Amino acid sequence: MTSNTISTPRKAAHDLGATAPSFSERFETVRCRTAALAEPLEAEDCVVSSMPDVSPTKWHLAHTSWFFESFVLAQHAPTYRTPDPRYAYLFNSYYLQAGERHCRAQRGLATRPTLEQVLQYRHHVTEAVLALLNNVGADTSHPVHALVELGIHHEQQHQELLLTDIKHVLWTNPLRPTYRAQPDVTPAAVAPLGWIDVPEGIHRVGFEGNGFSFDNEAPAHRIFLEPSRLANRLVTNGEYLAFMQDGGYTRPAPWLSAGLTTVQEEGWTAPLYWEQSDDGWTEFTLGGTRPLKLDDPVCHVSYYEANAYARWAGKSLPTEGAWEVAAAAAAVEGPFAESGHHHPTPARSGPGLVQLYGDLWQWTRSAYLGYPGYQPARGAIGEYNGKWMADQWVLRGASCATPASHARHTYRNFFPSATRWQFAGIRLAEDA
Amino acid sequence: MTSNTISTPRKAAHDLGATAPSFSERFETVRCRTAALAEPLEAEDCVVSSMPDVSPTKWHLAHTSWFFESFVLAQHAPTYRTPDPRYAYLFNSYYLQAGERHCRAQRGLATRPTLEQVLQYRHHVTEAVLALLNNVGADTSHPVHALVELGIHHEQQHQELLLTDIKHVLWTNPLRPTYRAQPDVTPAAVAPLGWIDVPEGIHRVGFEGNGFSFDNEAPAHRIFLEPSRLANRLVTNGEYLAFMQDGGYTRPAPWLSAGLTTVQEEGWTAPLYWEQSDDGWTEFTLGGTRPLKLDDPVCHVSYYEANAYARWAGKSLPTEGAWEVAAAAAAVEGPFAESGHHHPTPARSGPGLVQLYGDLWQWTRSAYLGYPGYQPARGAIGEYNGKWMADQWVLRGASCATPASHARHTYRNFFPSATRWQFAGIRLAEDA
Amino acid sequence: MTSNTISTPRKAAHDLGATAPSFSERFETVRCRTAALAEPLEAEDCVVSSMPDVSPTKWHLAHTSWFFESFVLAQHAPTYRTPDPRYAYLFNSYYLQAGERHCRAQRGLATRPTLEQVLQYRHHVTEAVLALLNNVGADTSHPVHALVELGIHHEQQHQELLLTDIKHVLWTNPLRPTYRAQPDVTPAAVAPLGWIDVPEGIHRVGFEGNGFSFDNEAPAHRIFLEPSRLANRLVTNGEYLAFMQDGGYTRPAPWLSAGLTTVQEEGWTAPLYWEQSDDGWTEFTLGGTRPLKLDDPVCHVSYYEANAYARWAGKSLPTEGAWEVAAAAAAVEGPFAESGHHHPTPARSGPGLVQLYGDLWQWTRSAYLGYPGYQPARGAIGEYNGKWMADQWVLRGASCATPASHARHTYRNFFPSATRWQFAGIRLAEDA
Amino acid sequence: MTSNTISTPRKAAHDLGATAPSFSERFETVRCRTAALAEPLEAEDCVVSSMPDVSPTKWHLAHTSWFFESFVLAQHAPTYRTPDPRYAYLFNSYYLQAGERHCRAQRGLATRPTLEQVLQYRHHVTEAVLALLNNVGADTSHPVHALVELGIHHEQQHQELLLTDIKHVLWTNPLRPTYRAQPDVTPAAVAPLGWIDVPEGIHRVGFEGNGFSFDNEAPAHRIFLEPSRLANRLVTNGEYLAFMQDGGYTRPAPWLSAGLTTVQEEGWTAPLYWEQSDDGWTEFTLGGTRPLKLDDPVCHVSYYEANAYARWAGKSLPTEGAWEVAAAAAAVEGPFAESGHHHPTPARSGPGLVQLYGDLWQWTRSAYLGYPGYQPARGAIGEYNGKWMADQWVLRGASCATPASHARHTYRNFFPSATRWQFAGIRLAEDA
Repeated sequence: MTSNTISTPRKAAHDLGATAPSFSERFETVRCRTAALAEPLEAEDCVVSSMPDVSPTKWHLAHTSWFFESFVLAQHAPTYRTPDPRYAYLFNSYYLQAGERHCRAQRGLATRPTLEQVLQYRHHVTEAVLALLNNVGADTSHPVHALVELGIHHEQQHQELLLTDIKHVLWTNPLRPTYRAQPDVTPAAVAPLGWIDVPEGIHRVGFEGNGFSFDNEAPAHRIFLEPSRLANRLVTNGEYLAFMQDGGYTRPAPWLSAGLTTVQEEGWTAPLYWEQSDDGWTEFTLGGTRPLKLDDPVCHVSYYEANAYARWAGKSLPTEGAWEVAAAAAAVEGPFAESGHHHPTPARSGPGLVQLYGDLWQWTRSAYLGYPGYQPARGAIGEYNGKWMADQWVLRGASCATPASHARHTYRNFFPSATRWQFAGIRLAEDA
Repeated sequence: MTSNTISTPRKAAHDLGATAPSFSERFETVRCRTAALAEPLEAEDCVVSSMPDVSPTKWHLAHTSWFFESFVLAQHAPTYRTPDPRYAYLFNSYYLQAGERHCRAQRGLATRPTLEQVLQYRHHVTEAVLALLNNVGADTSHPVHALVELGIHHEQQHQELLLTDIKHVLWTNPLRPTYRAQPDVTPAAVAPLGWIDVPEGIHRVGFEGNGFSFDNEAPAHRIFLEPSRLANRLVTNGEYLAFMQDGGYTRPAPWLSAGLTTVQEEGWTAPLYWEQSDDGWTEFTLGGTRPLKLDDPVCHVSYYEANAYARWAGKSLPTEGAWEVAAAAAAVEGPFAESGHHHPTPARSGPGLVQLYGDLWQWTRSAYLGYPGYQPARGAIGEYNGKWMADQWVLRGASCATPASHARHTYRNFFPSATRWQFAGIRLAEDA
Repeated sequence: MTSNTISTPRKAAHDLGATAPSFSERFETVRCRTAALAEPLEAEDCVVSSMPDVSPTKWHLAHTSWFFESFVLAQHAPTYRTPDPRYAYLFNSYYLQAGERHCRAQRGLATRPTLEQVLQYRHHVTEAVLALLNNVGADTSHPVHALVELGIHHEQQHQELLLTDIKHVLWTNPLRPTYRAQPDVTPAAVAPLGWIDVPEGIHRVGFEGNGFSFDNEAPAHRIFLEPSRLANRLVTNGEYLAFMQDGGYTRPAPWLSAGLTTVQEEGWTAPLYWEQSDDGWTEFTLGGTRPLKLDDPVCHVSYYEANAYARWAGKSLPTEGAWEVAAAAAAVEGPFAESGHHHPTPARSGPGLVQLYGDLWQWTRSAYLGYPGYQPARGAIGEYNGKWMADQWVLRGASCATPASHARHTYRNFFPSATRWQFAGIRLAEDA
Repeated sequence: MTSNTISTPRKAAHDLGATAPSFSERFETVRCRTAALAEPLEAEDCVVSSMPDVSPTKWHLAHTSWFFESFVLAQHAPTYRTPDPRYAYLFNSYYLQAGERHCRAQRGLATRPTLEQVLQYRHHVTEAVLALLNNVGADTSHPVHALVELGIHHEQQHQELLLTDIKHVLWTNPLRPTYRAQPDVTPAAVAPLGWIDVPEGIHRVGFEGNGFSFDNEAPAHRIFLEPSRLANRLVTNGEYLAFMQDGGYTRPAPWLSAGLTTVQEEGWTAPLYWEQSDDGWTEFTLGGTRPLKLDDPVCHVSYYEANAYARWAGKSLPTEGAWEVAAAAAAVEGPFAESGHHHPTPARSGPGLVQLYGDLWQWTRSAYLGYPGYQPARGAIGEYNGKWMADQWVLRGASCATPASHARHTYRNFFPSATRWQFAGIRLAEDA
């Protein structure tokens, strides 16, 4: 797919630099990376939506451009001209206050604009934003700055979704095509399970200070924690298999009522992407189907499964507060998306909490709600986070599909109970 | 329906007593009251389920008897014989560990046993439990005591559901029949809206001490509250009409995304049971259809509507912690089910919080989750509360359909976001 | 259910007479018989609809009265007053030109009017029609005459549906209650299978001459038949079991595509009402569950099953033309509904075609379409038959639930391919 | 899309010849033509299915190749090797006896094989069949000959479906892309409506003699026709507009019950592909959206609409027998698919029946059933026609998307009542 290389030279340039990238360079790098994620794909792969949660690759590439067009260029670049005014209709996701939009259920049916045309649209928008940033200059108080910053983080979210979604698209095909051969990972013994104390008392949580955060991470506020402990690492495939072999998916006891109904209606007998072959369990990855590795963290489980596993194990899931307090001191590091290894890896041994970031998002037992004093922003941007605050759970950390600069310890990801196509796993907790 | 009077004489007896009722008398009173709730109905009314959430009256009468049969008599009354062993299949609600059960969707299709046979079944079970309690005597540590206590509270819950459900059944009928003529309520000016402080700091919440509570009210534990205020009374019909007239159901801004989808798919334009006639809005009550009273608290709204109203008003809903802390000192009083007036009434003026109990359950913005250290009981009884802890909201207080002795300030009722057939209303909150 | 006897004395009177009943007497007999069909039932049984095709007993009793009220009394009895004008809304079935009507899906949810009130409504309408007939007198050319005649035949159709529907309602109940004990039938050897020639050539079919017929039986017209043969009797349970044991429900070959899909989606493995017990197959009848009798004709099969059986047997189903030509000379006799034995019986031996009427309706391979020159009547009455002429099959004959005076050799019954709750069976045919 | 030209040179060769094409040449021409139909499309267009009836272009291209692979090469070409054995699973449509197959609902989700790979697969199969035909030689009694003949006609059916389906795919896209610019048609006055007699009597219908026909066209047999008349031409857009303006879609009287339900549930207010703009009605065609032409025949109507129009006009639809008898003497000519004008054109004036072929399929009022003595072929091939004989209507003639050599007067096309995406229109009939 040669057309994806449109912006590559410019990107290569600043990667050589030794100094911190400028704001424009950060913007451009993110834009390049998104297009680069589509490079291993055929045009045909980029069209379809394999289930209601999945958006086509082509749509991700276009929607992230529409975001800049609609929230930055339309208001701040008076001479900007869109290549096609109908794109505003096709590529708005859910911003009611930004106008009418194409029905989500039809996203995977729109064969035009073609992938090539979408990449041209991306280029057009990228150039226009760069020109605008050049005009605005270094004044970080200019409103364009905050909007582009939001657009960068928005686009990074879609980078993760693009990978998550294309994994499902490829798996839906009986031919099970590979996205990209995965780098080899040296096998290592998984760290033994240990428990890390989270002290009782009043703690301050939530985002404060400089830098970017989403509105749902604020306001910072105080919470009281009863004493508890967190597992040092994630639950492994081997440990999860023990649950399965103990009747995990068939005995009602550990399940939430809605969870058991889902298991039965959907016919779940294992995590998503697991299949039983004559040679034992296999797992579909972005590198293709391969034998299940027992030391890898268990992945692509729903909240229902995470919760049932925890109850079966006599434990619970962490609250988001306990997770944030415990993670506050740790470095934000892990095998992020940039590693090209889009699959979680076994826990390394060592003191303290491991696998906080870069392997898998971790289900918490906290419902996704506004913090005390939370107010969504005014206008369409305010629809970003606040209108989803019902029937979802907070996930903490970051995954192997998350860009490194997107992760932080106050980050609140959120998904409904039955979600399995995300890179999500299980960290146990227990009351002290 | 003369057959409903089977147990009445016995009940009348202890009502005359001046001393506190014995445990047996409490049991018998509750059993009598449930049957008495069916007296205004025709046999035909007691058969059907008008929507998936609604159970037939006949089923409520039988299921509450099955509960005693299955959890008390089957284990502790060796000589007990059921009138029909197939009732265990027909009248188990959802206790997976108590055996196979009739599909919930078919509850409203089972015309047999008839109402008369169900009332005989009730009588049979009541007599057997009374005999057992007589054998066990005054020893409150005997396990039968705790199980009967649980059965009493379970039955009280079904008394409220019976009223809630039959209201929906009668309303579904185009003839709109009346359940029972309602006592007149002297019209009074509604109390002005005021705000009650809830102080910041560590508070202890949850049930502790003697007396009965459900397992989901424990363990008692500490929470930290940022400072906030609660409205002294519930939102009125008149106030809610202002929201409606300001485009409440059509403008997306205050709605959760799933809420707006529900509004559009269900065609909601007002609370449940409201209808627009040539003479203005009417409201269907258990006393029939009548003109809407502006000073009554708004009733039969979902969480989605409660939350949208609060956002439109620039406020929020209380957390369950703030509600419990604020209500801890107040008397548990209100127009409960025993008043026979199965509809909320205007707020009286006075200091402090009013309408805490006996008018309407109050939606909180707290998801229904286990308290720190919560463990469901072992066995089928453990399915009572714990397995519903996903995608539901806590409601606090009690309603005009709740028996007085069933209410307490630690009580946690819970329903999903779109629930409207419950007697639920809105108390506002604001951050201090 | 003592209230059902309201009209009984009057009916008893004319049953004693030796002469042919008058038109008024015929009307009254039919009205009495409908109410008598509800006598074995409890009030609770008469409320529900156990699946979309099934109407409540209470509704059948009321709808047949509404038919006379709406099409006879409203136009021809100026002083007639309905007991409740809302009944016109509740009890209209599908006559769009007769005004708004209650949603069919809600029929089983309307608990009022009660059974008692419906029986009073019936009485009220019967008396008014009798008074009108008395006024009109013996003039059979008066329009009232034709409308009451239509109403009589309409009511006879609902007598059959009432039995068919209540069988499904009672079977839906896990207690499997009995409608009425069935008379014993002397077991007899089933007649051997034989073949009756239907000669090739031009034949005249359809209703002509005097007497009542539905509009879909006319105009009489000519058809050409290639030579064929009809089976002398219906397929038996024993013969159908051989099909089942030969993989009948699992091998795709004999099935229509939509039939196989239905079999798989509905999980069909046997005719409706068959169940496998430890002692072999049983069959639910209006007399309760009993062991399957191999010589009884197979009953409660869909067109899909009838067609698949015929293809498996190397035969086909008759066309409606061949059936009518073959049946034209035979007497219209059989064990009709009046026998009280609401179940088919084994074929008697003898020459010619047997089991033409009174056991089971017989699926034909003819789609239900208008005859050449067919014109539906003007107005609401014209909706009776004509608007169903798509995606239905003609059934010929009559069943054990059909009143004797309702059967004739030109009668065209019709149901969709997947219908199983009707008393329908299989007569084979073959090309000569 | 340069890759589509793989087989073009060979095709060009035989098009130059003056003599009748050989069997191999006919085969190869059909194969070329199918690929040529995809040439105006982008790879992205060829992936999706815009509704359950629509198959992706890529699938049509592959399935027609699988047909030859599975029914010809697998049995008669022992050295043939498939490029991928999994294609048999992916590209079987519904032949249960030919093995497991990919779920139809997932057809539009399989992004691989790519269009390029599918075209290579086509080439591979075409070459192998040509080699086999070369081996078999001129012996038309060899079983390969009949199978390839069937495959040719099968592929011609899919050529029509490919056009029909891609029209729906392109229309589903809000950008409404054009398939191919359409040739200009000289406007001409539409012929006046006239009536052609079909004489009463015994007629012989069905296919007999030499040449190819599908099994559902046989056996030839006798029918009796009462006298009737057929309209000389199809109903025009202008005539259909008069029906719409007379409340066609809102007044219940002319509609079948299921038709009216469909109209209301689907929100139909005009034929498919019509849209109302500020400048009046437009129609989407394979040449893009354009103003509605009043003299064109009305197109993309369902049986429900055709039947309602006919009843509104006081007429009926033809029986398939009357149509075939009337058409028997006419030439099989019309603007077929080869004209490149994939849209119907106004009726020319002249004696006799016009527009029999090449504009639109014509709904008949005959259900699609087996002729007397019809027997489906043994094995998987027997599933071609016979298993669809329920709940479908016969359409006669041929459309502007039908290849010329595919049409004949005994041809029986068939679709369900609500089908609108086919090129189908209305010819009226009346009883004489």
